Amino acid sequence: MTRLDLFIDRMVSQRACLDFAIAETDDLTGPVFELGLGNGRTFHHMRENIHGRDVYVFERAVASHPDSTPAEELTILGDVMETLPQSLERFGATASLIHADLGGHNRAKNDVFARAVSPLIEPLLVPGGLMVSSDRMYFDNMIELPLPEGAVEGRCFIYKK
Amino acid sequence: MTRLDLFIDRMVSQRACLDFAIAETDDLTGPVFELGLGNGRTFHHMRENIHGRDVYVFERAVASHPDSTPAEELTILGDVMETLPQSLERFGATASLIHADLGGHNRAKNDVFARAVSPLIEPLLVPGGLMVSSDRMYFDNMIELPLPEGAVEGRCFIYKK
Ligand SMILES: C[S@@+](CC[C@H](N)C(=O)[O-])C[C@H]1O[C@@H](n2cnc3c(N)ncnc32)[C@H](O)[C@@H]1O
Ligand code: NI
Ligand code: NI
Repeated sequence: MTRLDLFIDRMVSQRACLDFAIAETDDLTGPVFELGLGNGRTFHHMRENIHGRDVYVFERAVASHPDSTPAEELTILGDVMETLPQSLERFGATASLIHADLGGHNRAKNDVFARAVSPLIEPLLVPGGLMVSSDRMYFDNMIELPLPEGAVEGRCFIYKK
Repeated sequence: MTRLDLFIDRMVSQRACLDFAIAETDDLTGPVFELGLGNGRTFHHMRENIHGRDVYVFERAVASHPDSTPAEELTILGDVMETLPQSLERFGATASLIHADLGGHNRAKNDVFARAVSPLIEPLLVPGGLMVSSDRMYFDNMIELPLPEGAVEGRCFIYKK
């Protein structure tokens, strides 16, 4: 398995999980949160395929492709460890879908971060809301759903509140 | 079609074309040239799957992932407009496979560059050698091959000397 193989599996799994989660939450009206903008490819995919719901982006430093840069009023700048608790005061438990791709190359570090951020994500979701993540998350009262067709085990995770 | 869709098509096509071209040139012994290292994912894929042939990397400034960084003696630093003609003196027409992924976001600019670099690439290939590119190339005496299964038309090109 090469780095190219792994990367393709991750991208394909992200898309399969996002497409499933977007369709599954289609009846919900609450906002969508993209945690980690990066190059903006998954944000672009979400913005194109999600209708009637605001897609907010949480990012430390915006450095995305010009055509995948969110509007200022939909950008929540800062470290998610601070902006997620602030967003709970602002939005309450209303998010219909949260996608997180915050990790880097270091798997152990990603896992430590996933444990720290999980309790900040869970309270933001509305009952029935979904969370899609590239890392395994640690939630108290959410169930892990089976992956949709096309997604590769271990490359993506879906949780339901 | 979102940027994520396009990107997945490009990665999947690159891999399909590289796998085909690596197998197709397996009997040749000349070196392999990777033009443009970037993050190093396709280089990693080539190094893992090519046996008994040196894989040289042409790059202006190495900034790849640590486990995808070529050995110093296989790195040819500088602008390909200068290092390709120098490599013709050094290697002659011996390359068994050349892969180029030099383009950026601007398609018109990529095309101008492909026209300029094509005549510098063609003389480096041994008869029977293959060239895989993310951009359409402009060669005098090479034939364009049909894409292998899994590759998406327009996302990748294969040429044979
Ligand atoms: C892997 S990239 C996201 C790639 C994106 N899914 C795409 O398709 O282009 C991760 C992003 O998360 C951001 N990030 C990581 N940790 C963060 C944190 N604690 N707070 C805010 N942003 C963070 C990084 O700045 C980076 O832009
Ligand atoms: Ni790594
Ligand atoms: Ni672009």
